[in-house]
Amino acid sequence: MHRMRARRSHRFHHDDPGSESDSSTPWTASMRHKFREENEYRGASFWMDCYEKVSKTAEKYKRATEEHKREIEDLKAKNFFLRLWIQTDHDDLGGRSHDPGFSDVVLFAAEDGPNGGQSKPVLAHRAVLASRSPVFKAMLEHEVKESQSNTIKISEVSYDALRAFVNYLYCAEAFLDQQMAYDLLALAERYQVVHLKAYCEKFLVSKLKWDNSIVNYAFAHQHNAKLLLKAALSLIIVNKDKLKKRPEYSELIKKDPCLVVELLEACLAKQENTACSTGTI
Amino acid sequence: MHRMRARRSHRFHHDDPGSESDSSTPWTASMRHKFREENEYRGASFWMDCYEKVSKTAEKYKRATEEHKREIEDLKAKNFFLRLWIQTDHDDLGGRSHDPGFSDVVLFAAEDGPNGGQSKPVLAHRAVLASRSPVFKAMLEHEVKESQSNTIKISEVSYDALRAFVNYLYCAEAFLDQQMAYDLLALAERYQVVHLKAYCEKFLVSKLKWDNSIVNYAFAHQHNAKLLLKAALSLIIVNKDKLKKRPEYSELIKKDPCLVVELLEACLAKQENTACSTGTI
Repeated sequence: MHRMRARRSHRFHHDDPGSESDSSTPWTASMRHKFREENEYRGASFWMDCYEKVSKTAEKYKRATEEHKREIEDLKAKNFFLRLWIQTDHDDLGGRSHDPGFSDVVLFAAEDGPNGGQSKPVLAHRAVLASRSPVFKAMLEHEVKESQSNTIKISEVSYDALRAFVNYLYCAEAFLDQQMAYDLLALAERYQVVHLKAYCEKFLVSKLKWDNSIVNYAFAHQHNAKLLLKAALSLIIVNKDKLKKRPEYSELIKKDPCLVVELLEACLAKQENTACSTGTI
Repeated sequence: MHRMRARRSHRFHHDDPGSESDSSTPWTASMRHKFREENEYRGASFWMDCYEKVSKTAEKYKRATEEHKREIEDLKAKNFFLRLWIQTDHDDLGGRSHDPGFSDVVLFAAEDGPNGGQSKPVLAHRAVLASRSPVFKAMLEHEVKESQSNTIKISEVSYDALRAFVNYLYCAEAFLDQQMAYDLLALAERYQVVHLKAYCEKFLVSKLKWDNSIVNYAFAHQHNAKLLLKAALSLIIVNKDKLKKRPEYSELIKKDPCLVVELLEACLAKQENTACSTGTI
């Protein structure tokens, strides 16, 4: 029995590492430790054999790593070539901005509120806006007001966010903090810039914690950010006992009670599932 | 002595695989075979130890491979986002072309020769041309003839090559054969599109053989393609005894005797170097 078990785990350990099934191969230190324990009675030739097989595996991965490195260098060079940017003196953009030369359209941010007004202009190119956003494309191709006047007014956005947004359309780069990620995700959803939306969502998920999970849940719901919504919901469900103490929760009840109903229903469903699987119901 | 040698090669084999010095680590089958032979007198615990170390190395490379794969996916998505192209029905472009929407400049190919004339127009955008090529930038920013008329005439080029060239400026993609690689490299050098030049040069080097080495040498010299020049020269030097029999050689003497002088001087220098190192002089 002991021998059989050992043989089985030996075979398991040496599954072809390049194959898809490799994801289940036990590469962790604890799995190796177990494998050693199970086979420690074996002789030098067995371990020499194991050494040889794993060496081949390591070699295969090493070659793959080298190939990948070359591919990454090529792709980075291609990205660099495809960007449309110039060097600037603006520190907030890391010294880079999109190139406003030969621009044929001007964007203005129009912030709401008592101090709201028209911002400084952000110069751009119809071809680039249309290429990156199907919403801009439709807007520019059809003779709407914006198209005729060569001016596009973007409401409910700050100048800085609009500038970062347009910059992203040229360079696929943005320097995010929490607020900028919210602003850019909202713009990306509005103008259907899928790549930017995914970029912001990934950032917000990485910054997710219990303290900001309710705010993020409401935000994700409003802007159709499914990944963020799911991640925030998971965090809220884990902390559901503390939910009523959070001020954001009370605010959300006032602002959007239907969303709170959805949230509580999800908590309940999860509770029932857990109860069923552990057999307490 | 036997033990000392074995210990040294053991240490050598287990250099940190992540470090720079790893390039010298003997990962080949023959090196492994030698290592086994040198250490075959050793016991199970030695080989168990080797197995453990190489497993860790394999794990490290496996993790690197997974990280690289994710990075490659991200970079590919970024590339896709940064391209400016539309679907087309043209099979020669693999169903893709740059988007001529909102174009503000028109390029024409002007082929030389008895049938030369003005080609079909290739629509483009000043912002893109200027961003990809410092020559176009200077041409468009200063009030030269082309800039005023919104028309740029490109001499000594076919319509197909011009179209592929402009397409590359938008998508960083081209479908190359030998002739197209020559045409695009010449254009890339003329308009200083470094990325395209490197792409064509790599392709031409990969297609290099004795049969086309003289033609490639002359071409590389004419268009300042250093990598191709070096590769072609190496091939010519290896086959220098057959040089005089090639018709391209006689043609080159007529067309550019100075270049043949350079070529022969390089052959001679190589011969002297080889003679010195083998001690025949």
